[in-house]
Amino acid sequence: MEKLPSLDQVDAAGHPGSEDKEAARQALVKHREQLAELHDLLYANRRHALLIILQGMDTSGKDGTIRHVLSGLNPVGTQVLSFKAPNDLERAHDYLWRIHRHVPPHGTIGVFNRSHYEDVVTAFVHGTIDEAVRRRRFDEINAFEQYLHHNGIILLKFFLHISPEEQAERLAARIRDPAKMWKLSASDLSERPHWNEYQAAYNTALQATHTAWAPWTIVPADHKWYRNLLVARTVVAALEALKLGWPTGPVS
Amino acid sequence: MEKLPSLDQVDAAGHPGSEDKEAARQALVKHREQLAELHDLLYANRRHALLIILQGMDTSGKDGTIRHVLSGLNPVGTQVLSFKAPNDLERAHDYLWRIHRHVPPHGTIGVFNRSHYEDVVTAFVHGTIDEAVRRRRFDEINAFEQYLHHNGIILLKFFLHISPEEQAERLAARIRDPAKMWKLSASDLSERPHWNEYQAAYNTALQATHTAWAPWTIVPADHKWYRNLLVARTVVAALEALKLGWPTGPVS
Repeated sequence: MEKLPSLDQVDAAGHPGSEDKEAARQALVKHREQLAELHDLLYANRRHALLIILQGMDTSGKDGTIRHVLSGLNPVGTQVLSFKAPNDLERAHDYLWRIHRHVPPHGTIGVFNRSHYEDVVTAFVHGTIDEAVRRRRFDEINAFEQYLHHNGIILLKFFLHISPEEQAERLAARIRDPAKMWKLSASDLSERPHWNEYQAAYNTALQATHTAWAPWTIVPADHKWYRNLLVARTVVAALEALKLGWPTGPVS
Repeated sequence: MEKLPSLDQVDAAGHPGSEDKEAARQALVKHREQLAELHDLLYANRRHALLIILQGMDTSGKDGTIRHVLSGLNPVGTQVLSFKAPNDLERAHDYLWRIHRHVPPHGTIGVFNRSHYEDVVTAFVHGTIDEAVRRRRFDEINAFEQYLHHNGIILLKFFLHISPEEQAERLAARIRDPAKMWKLSASDLSERPHWNEYQAAYNTALQATHTAWAPWTIVPADHKWYRNLLVARTVVAALEALKLGWPTGPVS
């Protein structure tokens, strides 16, 4: 597996290997078609599931990525889960309980908009857990994800990396634009002063949980067209690597 | 933690430390009262959950243990799950998926009548998994149970150990007695010829998954009065070891 760069070494406005926005758009269209076909093969074979995990600061484009990359998929066999702050029942359970419940069944694609990584990043920045618990959770998460990998789940984890300047711009747009105002939440503003703590906590978490069985991709996400292209390309490559054909008989 | 004896060293008809059936009955009554109080404390504090796992051959008394040991508990805060052969949705998931869903929330007691140990015992005896997968699952189960332990779950695992002679007697009773006939299933009879394979597979599983954080108790279970007493005593001791008092304020 490739070594993961440190977050501060990645230019959020970069678009390596892709100079041309229009060419990127065309490539995205092609990737979406490939993805729809690969999804059908996954569904027919029912031996693997794909789990896509999206993390990133507020306004980094998690919802937009789902909309632009995955809109062509058959909703049968696709499920998106947005993990908000845990409710009472979820808080009464171990932190992976609500996560494991929603791990997709074989044959399907699941997308987590936020995930158990909130339990090692946000929880640490807020002081809910200390360093010892954070480290233990890294180990627990790695073991959990390896277990999933051994049991047919393909894990792809994406960190959507934006610059603080781009976030400021997007927050301002939410305030200015009536069609975007609904996206603004109080926490968007209250969390922004903790930008540097979040970057440090994310970088620690990414480095500690970048594994052969569940690798991270740091996605430069200031340019939405590049973000969409890189996520789509990575997902297509992972599914193609399974080399699935049509099953030659009924699948039990 | 105590070393676990090999299954064939444990006399299924034994009742060590308890000669008198009538005294055992009285002790059980007392243990049930203690258990009800400890359950209240667990519920009030909401920092731990107790998970009791019952495994054993057909007719070993899993249902009877639940009825006799746990009948005094407040049903609020108690849940019993009987894991049957997995259905289509469960089979489309990793084997711990249905297990993790039903891990009890903090403050409650959960009982599993059969569990993920079917996935390393029955699956191995039936040839569904090979030795390599069995060993990997032992590691996965140990990691999973350690994770639960770290997150507030007290795990107690009981193997109800009966002799083949006692099983023959109990199966005959199911055939003879109209009030027991409904308990008889086809698999009771079809699995019996595999007795020795099951004993070997259970012993391997018990030895491989007897850990400080999730210990097994091998329960001599030919005598129901001794079985009930030993399970009740073990559960009470584990809850007393938490040294819970009444919370001095509201619990968040």
